[in-house]
Amino acid sequence: MHAINLRKRLAVGAVAGLAVVGGIVGVSAYAAPGAETGPVEAVAVAEVQDDGVRGANALTREAALAVLDAAQDKAAELDQRVTVAIVDRAGNTVAMVKGDGAGPQSPDSAEAKAYTAVSWGQATSDLTENAVGDGATVADIPGTLFLAGGVPVVYDGAPIAGIGVGGAPSGDIDEEIALAGLAALADLEG
Amino acid sequence: MHAINLRKRLAVGAVAGLAVVGGIVGVSAYAAPGAETGPVEAVAVAEVQDDGVRGANALTREAALAVLDAAQDKAAELDQRVTVAIVDRAGNTVAMVKGDGAGPQSPDSAEAKAYTAVSWGQATSDLTENAVGDGATVADIPGTLFLAGGVPVVYDGAPIAGIGVGGAPSGDIDEEIALAGLAALADLEG
Amino acid sequence: MHAINLRKRLAVGAVAGLAVVGGIVGVSAYAAPGAETGPVEAVAVAEVQDDGVRGANALTREAALAVLDAAQDKAAELDQRVTVAIVDRAGNTVAMVKGDGAGPQSPDSAEAKAYTAVSWGQATSDLTENAVGDGATVADIPGTLFLAGGVPVVYDGAPIAGIGVGGAPSGDIDEEIALAGLAALADLEG
Amino acid sequence: MHAINLRKRLAVGAVAGLAVVGGIVGVSAYAAPGAETGPVEAVAVAEVQDDGVRGANALTREAALAVLDAAQDKAAELDQRVTVAIVDRAGNTVAMVKGDGAGPQSPDSAEAKAYTAVSWGQATSDLTENAVGDGATVADIPGTLFLAGGVPVVYDGAPIAGIGVGGAPSGDIDEEIALAGLAALADLEG
Amino acid sequence: MHAINLRKRLAVGAVAGLAVVGGIVGVSAYAAPGAETGPVEAVAVAEVQDDGVRGANALTREAALAVLDAAQDKAAELDQRVTVAIVDRAGNTVAMVKGDGAGPQSPDSAEAKAYTAVSWGQATSDLTENAVGDGATVADIPGTLFLAGGVPVVYDGAPIAGIGVGGAPSGDIDEEIALAGLAALADLEG
Amino acid sequence: MHAINLRKRLAVGAVAGLAVVGGIVGVSAYAAPGAETGPVEAVAVAEVQDDGVRGANALTREAALAVLDAAQDKAAELDQRVTVAIVDRAGNTVAMVKGDGAGPQSPDSAEAKAYTAVSWGQATSDLTENAVGDGATVADIPGTLFLAGGVPVVYDGAPIAGIGVGGAPSGDIDEEIALAGLAALADLEG
Amino acid sequence: MHAINLRKRLAVGAVAGLAVVGGIVGVSAYAAPGAETGPVEAVAVAEVQDDGVRGANALTREAALAVLDAAQDKAAELDQRVTVAIVDRAGNTVAMVKGDGAGPQSPDSAEAKAYTAVSWGQATSDLTENAVGDGATVADIPGTLFLAGGVPVVYDGAPIAGIGVGGAPSGDIDEEIALAGLAALADLEG
Amino acid sequence: MHAINLRKRLAVGAVAGLAVVGGIVGVSAYAAPGAETGPVEAVAVAEVQDDGVRGANALTREAALAVLDAAQDKAAELDQRVTVAIVDRAGNTVAMVKGDGAGPQSPDSAEAKAYTAVSWGQATSDLTENAVGDGATVADIPGTLFLAGGVPVVYDGAPIAGIGVGGAPSGDIDEEIALAGLAALADLEG
Repeated sequence: MHAINLRKRLAVGAVAGLAVVGGIVGVSAYAAPGAETGPVEAVAVAEVQDDGVRGANALTREAALAVLDAAQDKAAELDQRVTVAIVDRAGNTVAMVKGDGAGPQSPDSAEAKAYTAVSWGQATSDLTENAVGDGATVADIPGTLFLAGGVPVVYDGAPIAGIGVGGAPSGDIDEEIALAGLAALADLEG
Repeated sequence: MHAINLRKRLAVGAVAGLAVVGGIVGVSAYAAPGAETGPVEAVAVAEVQDDGVRGANALTREAALAVLDAAQDKAAELDQRVTVAIVDRAGNTVAMVKGDGAGPQSPDSAEAKAYTAVSWGQATSDLTENAVGDGATVADIPGTLFLAGGVPVVYDGAPIAGIGVGGAPSGDIDEEIALAGLAALADLEG
Repeated sequence: MHAINLRKRLAVGAVAGLAVVGGIVGVSAYAAPGAETGPVEAVAVAEVQDDGVRGANALTREAALAVLDAAQDKAAELDQRVTVAIVDRAGNTVAMVKGDGAGPQSPDSAEAKAYTAVSWGQATSDLTENAVGDGATVADIPGTLFLAGGVPVVYDGAPIAGIGVGGAPSGDIDEEIALAGLAALADLEG
Repeated sequence: MHAINLRKRLAVGAVAGLAVVGGIVGVSAYAAPGAETGPVEAVAVAEVQDDGVRGANALTREAALAVLDAAQDKAAELDQRVTVAIVDRAGNTVAMVKGDGAGPQSPDSAEAKAYTAVSWGQATSDLTENAVGDGATVADIPGTLFLAGGVPVVYDGAPIAGIGVGGAPSGDIDEEIALAGLAALADLEG
Repeated sequence: MHAINLRKRLAVGAVAGLAVVGGIVGVSAYAAPGAETGPVEAVAVAEVQDDGVRGANALTREAALAVLDAAQDKAAELDQRVTVAIVDRAGNTVAMVKGDGAGPQSPDSAEAKAYTAVSWGQATSDLTENAVGDGATVADIPGTLFLAGGVPVVYDGAPIAGIGVGGAPSGDIDEEIALAGLAALADLEG
Repeated sequence: MHAINLRKRLAVGAVAGLAVVGGIVGVSAYAAPGAETGPVEAVAVAEVQDDGVRGANALTREAALAVLDAAQDKAAELDQRVTVAIVDRAGNTVAMVKGDGAGPQSPDSAEAKAYTAVSWGQATSDLTENAVGDGATVADIPGTLFLAGGVPVVYDGAPIAGIGVGGAPSGDIDEEIALAGLAALADLEG
Repeated sequence: MHAINLRKRLAVGAVAGLAVVGGIVGVSAYAAPGAETGPVEAVAVAEVQDDGVRGANALTREAALAVLDAAQDKAAELDQRVTVAIVDRAGNTVAMVKGDGAGPQSPDSAEAKAYTAVSWGQATSDLTENAVGDGATVADIPGTLFLAGGVPVVYDGAPIAGIGVGGAPSGDIDEEIALAGLAALADLEG
Repeated sequence: MHAINLRKRLAVGAVAGLAVVGGIVGVSAYAAPGAETGPVEAVAVAEVQDDGVRGANALTREAALAVLDAAQDKAAELDQRVTVAIVDRAGNTVAMVKGDGAGPQSPDSAEAKAYTAVSWGQATSDLTENAVGDGATVADIPGTLFLAGGVPVVYDGAPIAGIGVGGAPSGDIDEEIALAGLAALADLEG
């Protein structure tokens, strides 16, 4: 993970009147523009070590939409009706679109493949062996699906998202579509 | 959000044999040490724009455990039986511990308060007004709980986690315990 | 609903060897290109009345992505972190994207508003009165959320989709963003 | 999918006072007869391209009830206690009836078979091979059941519904009953 | 409940080789016609008191379908798009049909109203007062909905089913439709 | 199913003022003793055919408790820590008790076995073959568990309940305990 | 909580071949009689402090069944159809029985009341005030129900179980039945 | 289980005015310090037999946190990103922490392994055989996972908790980390 060089302040929300911790340096709050939830009353801020905080990476929404778009274009080119989903490293779906006429099972399939790809940091087609054999396998872990059609987005050596496609009659086609979505990340404008 | 200055490579997992996208610069994969999942076969790497990636922050597990510990020590000092939970900005519980003899409702209560605090970036005690009034309110959003006892951890101007406490006979006590957990973040060693 | 004038054939899948119904006119099946699921064995086709079939309308995936894009652009313009979701008349989410830094509650909020808008065929801001009053209201129906930020897409007199936005500090802002998404439908190229 | 020849107006619900998009041509709303939800206040209507809308087909409720009736009559003839369910292409159950004395597992079984049949556009008895083999299969996708007893309703080349039957001691019998339901579609009066 | 006059045998399934209980009088099993599950091996039968068994009543599937049909005819007459559901005294949906163009929320609404009507043995419109007032009410019990549109079917002094309707713009209309379904029970042929 | 000889009145709840159906013969309602829910206002009663109603049977609660007691006594005799559950023909758990020190998985295991036994009308140990083989099996139906320890209660030729036991180190022991519960039904006093 | 005076051994299961921790004093395992799960291979045992372990109390299954029995007898005496449930301090249902003819909502109601009573250590009728007022209340915590009919079982100063009753037309009656169950605990034989 | 020698009073909460049961000896209630829920009004106390109560054991929260800490230290030493979870004998997660960068599947995996270990009282690596073979196995019981990485905490001959680890590329590594957590129990200070 990239280094965090600066010592920053970790603002800790504290209700006014309570004993303040550490060295107070100011008052601040997470106030979204035009927030209606009212002013934060007296949030005390303590000086803390940056060591308590770690960085992580994620796809921007622009990148995510570019992936959805490119993947669906490929699906249209192949005359396939699919759903494309993107799952972040926290395991949440952050973007998805169901293609015209795609089957009802395609969203669940796409999300599960994306989830699996970002969890293991590999394409689901490379992971199928993990679900093979008598007895329990990783395929028993809830939310996973070890079918082709899920590919990871790896940045700085770590998986930051998974792209999953479901609905085509074969996993190979699903994967081809997912990879077209992935390729779109190479074409983003700086 | 802190700037990402370097142009990095976004490694996109691609299955061997598929058309490679962008400028190929190498082969890499997210290989955890000693991984059993087998070698990644021919993952192509494309050069992409950093603009598709955004940074985010989260508490380290050491910081999280320090929060749990400090909060439970405060609970013991106050002779309270509570659960303490930490929820990240993705909405997932990343740490929790149920105190000795804490009620069965305390984990759900603690998690929902932490979820609410990190969602709105404010202490739940400052948000109670949002749940007041005839008709629908934000309290109708699933997973939220607008009772005192949840506080946000704000870093670099944005909420990165919520600390929630449930189980004490009053929300004020829950909040006092949550704030003791929050204060622990000021004492982390660099 | 627009009329269906032509008498079409309703192909009914039937396993070979079973008594065939009605007038057999051919053999056909829903075979996706390159389907791996194997050949459909002897699907009998019966002549049926069109009266058993009704038409319905839905947004195309291109329209859906255009809505997501325009809404998020508006959100960026307003410096808001939101999720935008589109729900079809069957109640399923067919497209969504979480904005950069949007809160964990925003996907649930956006989907529930979209669901409510397409269910009632009105903007959620026009429906808030329905959730007001002592006793049970329609807000008790699972999956609904009567907060501003959901708008219906009405076509040919009937709601065909709902656009929902969640995550801004006020429902008015959420609605402004949803309407920007809706406006994108007017700019689609024929 | 049948063509949509006319250029229609896509009515987009917009709250009064907001900037109106495109060419305003009128004011309209989805007002069900006698609706209590109050008048829609100033819903602006924008001229949009039909290209944003696609058509889909579904069974009418009369057709659905005819299927349920015919299938249960066949079940009675065969002295079987079953549930019959119909699932639309969106994956939702749109009609079902549990037979007299049918087992508690029969509704879930019937719905899952119908869901599978409409998802793949084939009879579940033709799909069983897809669930065979070591490792993950499509049977791992949530909501599916690859046992005989589910048949698709195909119209204009696309699956528009699935009919599922559960509860008989063998899938072959379930399928015979499902097909009797399907056959009823050939007898609908125009 | 109607009296059970005859002393009957309660057949208890027991595996061969296990100590047999009570007075053995024969061998029997619940063998559905043509069951594939194989012969029941040596099910021992014990003579027991009828007192361990109580009778209950339920609508037949023919009655259930007649209710759905009549209710939807009424809905069509009133130009309403609704779902009609029937829930038995065990709380399970035993029949339902979604009308043409009915909203996505209508199945949940219809089922919850039917559930509430059969639970309390009264029309939901007569129960709305139970959900009124500050603090907890019966409306907090999961699965209930205290809006007009649910009516009980009472037989021999006890509720045996509930008919629920959802989707019309007002509960009064939903109830009118539900009552039309109920009236169909008076017209069944003996 | 035993015959219902008498022509009875099916009381249909109808709200006053609505058009009354069939021949009105009186006013009645399901009024539990001391009910607080208020008087039923003008419930009209229509004369209907008995043919719309069918009888069913279930264990009395006394019988159910006798089963739980006997099974747990047997478990104690065998020094086993188990949960015993009874599921009715509607698939609902109607009685259960967790033994002292029984494992956390035992309630789910016991309920699923009871559910399976009452669904198929056979002991789960006689049904294990149904879950064997490559590809999908009935074990894929939600809520089922094809492990020994579930036995059906058969009355008048039909399964009316299932008794399930979970928690012993082997299914054979679970079944022995379940059968001890079943045997208690032979000892009920008239 | 009662004191644990003896220094006991905390047996920690460890796989053979792994470095053994602390002072090894023997080999032991939790082997249920006749367990089929095979021998535990080389479970190492470490000497640990008792301080890591705390005691808790729970109702025996005999006591639980006595409560169910007494409560249902009271219900029969009052001519009420109810479900009685017992929830332990971990929040799990450990015993329940549905009375003859009790409504489908009664199990959920009974369990939620028992859950609430054991969570707060008070009768739910004494807790109703906690659910009163504008805005969020503890009634928003999942699984709770603040209606009369739940009573705690308090032992050694701490709640160890909750008894909940649902299904009677008024909470007062439910509570009377719950208390009859509670009273049975005073009559247990030593 | 260790003996309870003293005859204690089982305080049964009873509402004032109700007939008091057994020998009244005092008034008491579970009043947490500073409880806001108001005074318990007239809780009657009955003398009962201790035989209705059984003891159980659980890890203290200090022990639980020590386990989490030690396990994560081991994970860091091995350069692994994992979640560590502790499940008590009631089956509830009582403590967990997700490591820095651990995959989204790791919490579910860790909890399921811990659940399995405490259910069977053995390391999951010793239980894998139980999930092997054609047909149903214990792996079909919901919530279980028969992969290495779960170890039981056995005290006084009974499992009182399970420690589960998920996220490492192999179950052996997960188990090594879990055992490091277990070992921490040997080092607790008295």
